Amino acid sequence: MRVYLDHNATAPLRPEAKAAMIAAMEIVGNPSSVHAEGRAAKGLMEKARAEIAAAFGADGADVVFTSGATEAAALALQGRDLHAGDIEHDAVSAWVTSDLPVDGNGQVSVKDPAKTALQLANSETGIVQTLPDGLLLSDMTQGFGKLPVAFNWSGATMALVSAHKLGGPKGIGALVVKRGTDIPAQLLGGGQEMGRRAGTENLIGMAGFAAAATAAAKDLADGVWERVANLRDLLEEALAAEAKDTIFVGKGEKRLPNTTCIATPGWKGETQVMQMDLAGFAISAGSACSSGKVRASRVLKAMGYDDATAASAIRVSLGPDTTEQDVLGFAESWLTRMRKHRDRTLKGAA
Amino acid sequence: MRVYLDHNATAPLRPEAKAAMIAAMEIVGNPSSVHAEGRAAKGLMEKARAEIAAAFGADGADVVFTSGATEAAALALQGRDLHAGDIEHDAVSAWVTSDLPVDGNGQVSVKDPAKTALQLANSETGIVQTLPDGLLLSDMTQGFGKLPVAFNWSGATMALVSAHKLGGPKGIGALVVKRGTDIPAQLLGGGQEMGRRAGTENLIGMAGFAAAATAAAKDLADGVWERVANLRDLLEEALAAEAKDTIFVGKGEKRLPNTTCIATPGWKGETQVMQMDLAGFAISAGSACSSGKVRASRVLKAMGYDDATAASAIRVSLGPDTTEQDVLGFAESWLTRMRKHRDRTLKGAA
Repeated sequence: MRVYLDHNATAPLRPEAKAAMIAAMEIVGNPSSVHAEGRAAKGLMEKARAEIAAAFGADGADVVFTSGATEAAALALQGRDLHAGDIEHDAVSAWVTSDLPVDGNGQVSVKDPAKTALQLANSETGIVQTLPDGLLLSDMTQGFGKLPVAFNWSGATMALVSAHKLGGPKGIGALVVKRGTDIPAQLLGGGQEMGRRAGTENLIGMAGFAAAATAAAKDLADGVWERVANLRDLLEEALAAEAKDTIFVGKGEKRLPNTTCIATPGWKGETQVMQMDLAGFAISAGSACSSGKVRASRVLKAMGYDDATAASAIRVSLGPDTTEQDVLGFAESWLTRMRKHRDRTLKGAA
Repeated sequence: MRVYLDHNATAPLRPEAKAAMIAAMEIVGNPSSVHAEGRAAKGLMEKARAEIAAAFGADGADVVFTSGATEAAALALQGRDLHAGDIEHDAVSAWVTSDLPVDGNGQVSVKDPAKTALQLANSETGIVQTLPDGLLLSDMTQGFGKLPVAFNWSGATMALVSAHKLGGPKGIGALVVKRGTDIPAQLLGGGQEMGRRAGTENLIGMAGFAAAATAAAKDLADGVWERVANLRDLLEEALAAEAKDTIFVGKGEKRLPNTTCIATPGWKGETQVMQMDLAGFAISAGSACSSGKVRASRVLKAMGYDDATAASAIRVSLGPDTTEQDVLGFAESWLTRMRKHRDRTLKGAA
């Protein structure tokens, strides 16, 4: 029996998304075709766009569908010369100058919001930023669906979102922009997405994204994430009771309700991920996109942690279906391995 | 009862693709994650990649998944300064210099294959090109699944393909390249697709693409498209028997088995599409991506047709499930409208 505690890497597909995708499979047409089948496809697409805008508090803004937040980042950021702190996801970092100060609590000091990209929440630590008014771009990939966020009230001109982080399918996301924002297309050869992104649209993915976003908004309203936050806190307490050297990064800060970043200096994060995987628990060290590379977390280093601490971090990220049994089972299993690691280290030192 | 005769715009999802996609919905992990769930996702992805390579005769080549042929074109062509005839899809035309001669039969004269993009088959006319050895890129989007094409024997270094043209989902395609071809990434921020295309992968789409490609390859081997070609010929004969001024573009040339491009000078293609839509038949004028814009077909103009002829063209594209009743029903309905158009024109002239 596996326990999946890596929801920030990707969340399981919500049943509502699955049902919407299966229904969308029956729509035959190309949204660009003028005949009845094409119009039906276009209708489904525009319905999905409106549902996502509603769930994201973005009525009246433009939702430009992309193949994910990575493409949305490239579309929004290429050629804009923005600044950021060195805690952004690689898909944002690739296009910006990472020279803004990051303090020990993971907070970024913004100088000129109109020239800045700032994430809503960090994927590794869950730390939430206060977005300044007039911010040009915010990566809201991890926040959308877990935090009560409304694009229209965020003060940001552009936002990146992704379906698979909130229970939709992988391979679909969006760049959400205030109406009138100039977005030069990078994919050319068709008038789709108001001329901002050519290519036949991922209709089934859009349907799944919309259904997942709607279900996620309902979860938020129903207080599901408060329950999850309590489980996350329970997990941290269970570990802290015995693991005295372990640091819960950003514990005093406002964080995503489902995320804990656990650093145990000297015990490699990658080793922990492998040991916990064998024990039946899926967690990660760093973001999934850089998994497989054994290296210290760039995010933790930006917060001032040393290499040994940054390389020891694991991320445990819960989901709406995570149970108390899941987190207490994880705590027990992790503590057993932590004791063994500690004993080996003590022997080595003796 | 609708009859869908616009398979070149997009093909209905094959049952095999639907089943594979529903199965893939149960795979929880991110292919970049190192735990068991991530490895299962990666396994599904690599199985899909291998199946597509097998169906496309591309064993040993690299299949770089993209969000469709449009993204594959941008990835392959940006910054390469290639030449082409003015019959390529807009997604290719956007990146090349369209200065190669096109003859009246739609054939392109290639000067330097290593600096050329040349489609395998035209989406509007179905006309098939003979690909020269050493060709740098071929858009095989319309050919893959309908023609017995093998990438490894095509002589091309790169090829564009798309799932939804052969019965897979919209929003997934691939750039297929000879191993070792340098493809600088345009989406950055993750090591996916061997560093050529960052972003969490469209796993459900990949599974659908692979199942559709495999089913399409089986259809080809089973002679399904020969039956379709006979229906297409039957349709052309039925129309030609009465519509003496109507031109079947490229009829003498090697064409896709499912495609007929029907030009009736003076009768606008857009008008025919709307009339036939009301009569229950989905067809198109020009490619879907430029549908909705009333303009003469660029492809036909490149072949030397005048504006009145080029603006009168419709495309009827059949699928594996098209029946004799479908095409004869279309012929009867179209001829009825053609007679009315002719009578109106004669009255106007009188």
